[in-house]
This record gives sequence, structure tokens and C-alpha cells, in this order.
Amino acid sequence: MNLTLDQVRTQIDENDSELLKVLRRRLELVKQVGLIKSKEGTPVYVPERERSLIDKRRAQASELGLNPDLAEDVLRRVMRESYGAENDVGFKCLNESVKKIVIIGGRGGIGSIFTRLFRSSGYTVEVMGHRDWDRAGEIFAGAGLVVVCVPIDRTEEVIGKLQGLLSPECVLADFTSIKTNPVKSMMAVHQGPVMGLHPMFGPDISNMAKQVIISVEGRYPEKCGWVLDQMTLWGARIKKFSAAEHDDAMSYIQALRHFTTFSYGVFLAKENPDLDVLMELSSPIYRMELMMVGRLFAQDPVLYADIILSNKRNLDIIERYSSEISRAIELLKKGDREAFIEEFRMTKDFFGPLADYFMSESKSLIAKMHDAKV
Amino acid sequence: MNLTLDQVRTQIDENDSELLKVLRRRLELVKQVGLIKSKEGTPVYVPERERSLIDKRRAQASELGLNPDLAEDVLRRVMRESYGAENDVGFKCLNESVKKIVIIGGRGGIGSIFTRLFRSSGYTVEVMGHRDWDRAGEIFAGAGLVVVCVPIDRTEEVIGKLQGLLSPECVLADFTSIKTNPVKSMMAVHQGPVMGLHPMFGPDISNMAKQVIISVEGRYPEKCGWVLDQMTLWGARIKKFSAAEHDDAMSYIQALRHFTTFSYGVFLAKENPDLDVLMELSSPIYRMELMMVGRLFAQDPVLYADIILSNKRNLDIIERYSSEISRAIELLKKGDREAFIEEFRMTKDFFGPLADYFMSESKSLIAKMHDAKV
Repeated sequence: MNLTLDQVRTQIDENDSELLKVLRRRLELVKQVGLIKSKEGTPVYVPERERSLIDKRRAQASELGLNPDLAEDVLRRVMRESYGAENDVGFKCLNESVKKIVIIGGRGGIGSIFTRLFRSSGYTVEVMGHRDWDRAGEIFAGAGLVVVCVPIDRTEEVIGKLQGLLSPECVLADFTSIKTNPVKSMMAVHQGPVMGLHPMFGPDISNMAKQVIISVEGRYPEKCGWVLDQMTLWGARIKKFSAAEHDDAMSYIQALRHFTTFSYGVFLAKENPDLDVLMELSSPIYRMELMMVGRLFAQDPVLYADIILSNKRNLDIIERYSSEISRAIELLKKGDREAFIEEFRMTKDFFGPLADYFMSESKSLIAKMHDAKV
Repeated sequence: MNLTLDQVRTQIDENDSELLKVLRRRLELVKQVGLIKSKEGTPVYVPERERSLIDKRRAQASELGLNPDLAEDVLRRVMRESYGAENDVGFKCLNESVKKIVIIGGRGGIGSIFTRLFRSSGYTVEVMGHRDWDRAGEIFAGAGLVVVCVPIDRTEEVIGKLQGLLSPECVLADFTSIKTNPVKSMMAVHQGPVMGLHPMFGPDISNMAKQVIISVEGRYPEKCGWVLDQMTLWGARIKKFSAAEHDDAMSYIQALRHFTTFSYGVFLAKENPDLDVLMELSSPIYRMELMMVGRLFAQDPVLYADIILSNKRNLDIIERYSSEISRAIELLKKGDREAFIEEFRMTKDFFGPLADYFMSESKSLIAKMHDAKV
């Protein structure tokens, strides 16, 4: 039987409609999982369950003659939605003895995520803004956890104001993207349990599954444990580092990287090429790189200035980077192709197996970005 | 009725299994579309059809209480697979008068994609490697299209060898990532139709839907048209530019960007921070940036050296970029937060609406990268 193009397309539409119904049924089932987990206090994200589920479907895909990568990509996207659906039903409260949690800056992007999650775990959460300090005595009274979640340039000042306001049993934590000074300051104003935290994600996440939160020990870690356990229940992965290890790594992860992105963007703006032409001529990989630069400038300049300027070490690294650029230019001006290749190989060695891994990861990501192109 | 966690999970597994069957049925239907299109000579990629299909499903998702973005993401991933399935059944041959196509370098990554696509469109394709030049007379005899698809540093040499080998009706084209010199050289050795092409994608694409190919006019464009039409049928988007426009844009798209990625990688290797720690502490956005750097070093150093060194203009831009870096450092050393913020705003203006667009595009892409994290 020979169908026309329109007839086959009608069948495809019917099939896609069925696909949506199957997706919807999955999210309904996942809500039930959420309810059970919420009662039992089981973490949202269980790596082994995710792995085994994916493996089973990859195997089935192969049997069906379907690309296993297609099955995995679709399932992983569905799982993101599923973790969100588990959120909706709330979480078990792991420390019912805590009467109140105060999140200073809890109306901001990151602050509001934690406010919502603590509340949906049965805690009473009070959000403190900069206009609320005249009510500070009342707000902090009886708090079992206080989190400082304010812009980096205001962190020290806010911590200073806490002097004498917290009960000895209260856990004091902060979310600043540097750790040495904030932890030191918190230890100075508060004699009780202290812990530095750094949630490694932006305010746009849909749920906390697999998101990394860095934890830096301050004082009485055994009294801070319930906070970390609660976050693990939400799906987060807690990684413990010292303040120095954290700050050293952040010089590369934040300061250097933000600086190079910033100066690349500023340079492009000054050169002023026709952006429409650049976009039209873009390969997927360049489009992704331009996206990584352009997105910075949709964000808050103060945040980036303060991260880069937060310590002298950042500027030292950036200056060394600038020398490296000048050196590489000299190499190219001499037309020294051999030296270029030699340094390329040395850097490949530095990345080791990660270079190939990043190559295949980026291939798949570029394909996903390209999927969305109309 | 209260189900246990295991019971609900069994139902989820059954539902996921059903999901795969629905996906498989879709790809079977798509093969039928491919067969019809192949007979009729309809392009693989029809933007309007894609848009209307997505819109219909987004609307249905909303009705079902399902996140429309979930529906769109899943469908777009499925569509990528569908374009591939349409490939499998072959394409209509748009110029049956062409007896033979020769692809010089047709065994390379990009060359082999085009070899496969021309063959599956019913053309006789001969692949020419560097050992085949003693048979050149025989290989080029009767060719209706010759494509030079060799590394950038060998392009001129290979074009030179074509002198006197092509019939006047033969279309001569190249795939080099610069266009001014190759097009000039092709015009010099061949009196017939000449066209410069630049496929803007890597060898890892699964199909040609939506991929950009830049076309630069050489001689007798009306005799080159069938080649572009054939590529459009495969799903590619042809964009016409002059050689100068193309090469100017490529200084930014390729040379500057490759240079900054290269020097950033080399710098990191020389600083030698613990990569495992950097990875552990990475936010999704930094991980993506590190991925963009690391992937370069899994590739061919010679290619990047030759792209950067291909003209003097590239080095000029790179030197201006280096000056910009030095200037930005002076600004930071003075602690001039206001000036930093001012330049940030100026650059935001340069990106215009693209900054916000890139922000939301990258959010969705970062989420997809994060989905794959185990």
C-alpha cells in the first residue's frame, strides 16, 4: 500500500501525541515515588537507580534496532522533569528540633531556592532582607540555622552584624563564592557551629538533583551534619574541601575564566564586527562559544567585578595569563608552527584522557544545541 | 491503594519500555517519509513543518499539564534521529547528466560525509588520495564536479596540480576554511565553472539537516546551482557571501577564538592546577567552559596552526586582543570597579537582545549537559 506524504505525516502526529501521553503517565508515577520517598526520607537522586534504569533501556533499544544514545538522551531529559516532580510533593524533615531557619537574602535567586526547599521539608523559614535589621532580635530568636546569602561585597558587613544575635546552638553558614574570609568572620562573631557552603549552580536550576554544594568546615562539624544530610535528601552532592583549596581552585574556575570572557566580549564590542554576519556564518561550535561570552553580559556586572577583585591572587593569575598570551603571539609572529604544535601536545598531555572525553561530550552537546535550531 | 517503591518502579520501567516502542514506531514512519521524499525530490529539512509539529505538541503538552519545554526537547532529539533515518533511504539525483564526481581527500572526515551523500543520491563518486596522482588523467576524465577537500596547507598545491586536467564543463569547488586565495587559484587553473564552499561543521554530524554551508561565487554560478540544490535536498542551508566577507568574519570566528582557546589551555597546563579538583569543584557553566578548551587539544594541532597563520589579518586581530587584555588588567589593578561596570554595559549594548537570548539558550543547554551527569 502506498501512502501519501500527508497520510504518513498524520500517522506521525498520532504517534507523537501518544508519546506525550506516555511521558505524562511517567510523571504521574514519579509523583507517587516522591510521596513514598518523602515519607521514608530517601534521597531524590540515587545514582545506582539512574544508572541501572538507563542501562536497561539502552539494552532494550539495541534489541529494538533503536539508537541507544537516543533512548538515553530522551530518558535523561525525562528524568530531569521527574526529579522536579519529586520536589513537588515535599521532603522529609531530618531535624524536627529546629524551630526556625533564617535565610538572610532569601528573596534573591539562590536564596529563594533554598527557602522553598527548606519550607517543603517542613521547616519554618524566615527570610531576612536589608530592611529587616531593626527587627533582628525577634527574627534570629530561636533560630537553629542562619544562612548568609547576600552579594559577595556585602557578606563581611552582614556577618559582622550578627554579633550577639545567635543562640550558642544555632548553625551559622554562608553561601559566598569565596570561603577563607567569610568562614573566619563567622567564627569570630559566633561561638557555636559554623560552616561555609558554596552552591555551585545558578538560580535557574529546576531541581537540586546532582547539583554540587561545596562544604568548608568551621566549628563543630557534627552539629552541622543535619544541614548537609537535608541537602543530600534534595538530591545535592556535598563535596568537602578546605577554605584554601576552595579559594585556590576558584581563582581558575571563577576569576580567570570570568576575566577572559569579559575581556573577549569587550574586545569584540570595540572591534564591532557585524554580529548578524557572525551568527549567520557560525559553525555550531563557534555559536556555542559566542553564547558563552554573550551570556555573561546579560548578568550582573557588580557580581563579576567583585568576584575578580575579591583577592590579590586572582589578579596575579590574570597577569600571568596575559604574559602567556604575549608569549604565544611572539611564537606566531615568528611563524613558529613547530613550537605551536609542541605546546599543543604538552597541553594535550595536561588534559590527559579528559581531552578525548571533552571532545565526545561536546559533540553530543553541540548536537543538542543544533537540534533546537529552526 | 498504597503501592511500595518497588511496585511503582516496576510500573515506571514498563512505561519507559512503552516509550521506546513509541520512539521506534516513529522512526519506522519516518523511513516511509524518506522513501516518498527521495522519489519526489523534497528536501529533508522543512523549517515550517518542524515548527508546526513542535507548536502542535507544545499546545497538547499544556493541555495535558505537561511542561511544553519537555515535549519540545524530546521531540527535537527525536527529529535529529528522524533526519538520519531519512538519509538511510537515499536522495533523488538532481543532475543525472553528471557522469562522475571526484572528491580529492574524500577519505577524510568531511570528505567521507560528502562522498556518502553524493553516492546515496545516485552519483558515481571517485575518491582521490595523495597516492592517486599518477592515475590523475583517468580519474578526472569525464568528471562533472571536482571538490578539493584537503588540509588548508595543501589546498593551493593540490589546486595547482589540476591545470589541464578538467573538462570545460566540470564544476570545480573547494571546502577550505579560507576563501579568497583558493577561489583565485581555482579560477586560474580552470576556465569552467568555479565555486568556493565552506561546510560549517565538523566530521561528527549525524546528518546534514540545518547544517550551514557557505558558498562563494567564482565563475558561471548558473552552472554550479545543481550542486547547491543537491545539498539543500540533504537538509543543508546554503548561505552566499563574498570571499572577503567570509574571510573577514573567519578571523573572528576561527582565528581569534582558536587562539584564545589555545593560549588559555597552554596557560592552564603551565600553571598545572589539579584537574581532578577543578572538575570536582566545577559549576555546570565552568565545566562547559573547560570542556570547550579541553576539546581543542583532542584535535589536530596542524589544522589550528594553519588556520591562525593563514593570513596577516588574523595576527593583527590577535595583537589588538592582547592589548585589550593588558588594558583591562590595568583597570582591575587600579581597582576601578566603576570602569569595569561601564565597559560591561557597553558590551551588553553591543550584544543587544542576543545577550538575553544567549542567556536563556545556555540555561537550557547547561541543563542538558547536567542531565547526562551521573
